[in-house]
Amino acid sequence: MTRQLGSGKLVIATHNAGKLKEIAALLEPYGLDCISAGALGLAEPAETGTTFVENALLKARAAAEASGLPALADDSGMSAVALDGRPGVYTADWAERQWFEGDPGRDWFMAMGKVEGMIAAKGPDAPRDAWFSCVLAIAWPDGDYAVYEGRCDGQLTWPPRGNLGFGYDPVFVPNGYEQTFAELQPSQKQAISHRSDAFAKLTADQFGSS
Amino acid sequence: MTRQLGSGKLVIATHNAGKLKEIAALLEPYGLDCISAGALGLAEPAETGTTFVENALLKARAAAEASGLPALADDSGMSAVALDGRPGVYTADWAERQWFEGDPGRDWFMAMGKVEGMIAAKGPDAPRDAWFSCVLAIAWPDGDYAVYEGRCDGQLTWPPRGNLGFGYDPVFVPNGYEQTFAELQPSQKQAISHRSDAFAKLTADQFGSS
Repeated sequence: MTRQLGSGKLVIATHNAGKLKEIAALLEPYGLDCISAGALGLAEPAETGTTFVENALLKARAAAEASGLPALADDSGMSAVALDGRPGVYTADWAERQWFEGDPGRDWFMAMGKVEGMIAAKGPDAPRDAWFSCVLAIAWPDGDYAVYEGRCDGQLTWPPRGNLGFGYDPVFVPNGYEQTFAELQPSQKQAISHRSDAFAKLTADQFGSS
Repeated sequence: MTRQLGSGKLVIATHNAGKLKEIAALLEPYGLDCISAGALGLAEPAETGTTFVENALLKARAAAEASGLPALADDSGMSAVALDGRPGVYTADWAERQWFEGDPGRDWFMAMGKVEGMIAAKGPDAPRDAWFSCVLAIAWPDGDYAVYEGRCDGQLTWPPRGNLGFGYDPVFVPNGYEQTFAELQPSQKQAISHRSDAFAKLTADQFGSS
């Protein structure tokens, strides 16, 4: 049986204020007091893993070891069948651009273009299937851990469509829909997203509810 | 011998005010009175050619036939050796995106990503050589024409660098330079650009000067 968090303090291993707020809102109903790794002054470990599970675990473990508290981390990304699962853990790396020195911003349209170019190079019959993954990892200071993996399958379209969402959303059409993630309303996307799927698995296992 | 424009009216087959201004400034010293195709109410023909020369000529011819005056048109783009010359005449098409319905904007970083993805798919040893082309075509109402082709050779770099210039400039390092076209000052770029090369050939041939 999976180790249970119970109630009390939980470190959220993110320096992203928006992500902390979203996760805290989901977990506070279960009596968890969420604190960000950034607020504790913890360093962000390098994401050296080759899978989402490895990256989520190394972030959760680093935060649990440094804080002495249970810690939750996530890792997520998009994988294309024609590219043997890439960009995968390199989802954000492919969007890194050096617009000018000292400004390593992200450009998601550049990243979408790279994905499209790599698939296009394989010819018109290359599969357009892709999936979004979200892995949530909980690590305890004694080394115990739990992992929950969410997934959303779909097809890559071109050119990008829609101005909602984030990342590769404008090229991803979830199965059963005609719109891209960037054309769907946030509530529609949330109902089927990889992130919701992972959180549903976590709360079902940890708190006996979805 | 090439037909000479002499002095008088010349239709510039562009609906782009910036391009008209730039071309007019270059040609007015030679006694040419430049008028834009847009100001004459001429329609823009579809660029159905498969080469820069075809596209420049079809634009110049359409404007010359419709106006009864000599007309100048240009077509330009970037060609990658590893992609057998693509995007080439599709240079701008690769940047077309449907951000949301009714907004067919251009995103050059998306286009740069697509080029990079197609080259990356060919493996780490794929050639990074590329060239920019600019073709200037003059057409007379009687069907005569002249064509001038400018070129600038270089290498494609990744990720994009620099915030000057236009189009694929942030990934194009001209031969003999370390900076991309988007890192070079406009005067440096102008000294070596495909467009300057084409205009130098035109003015040398038409007016006996460069």
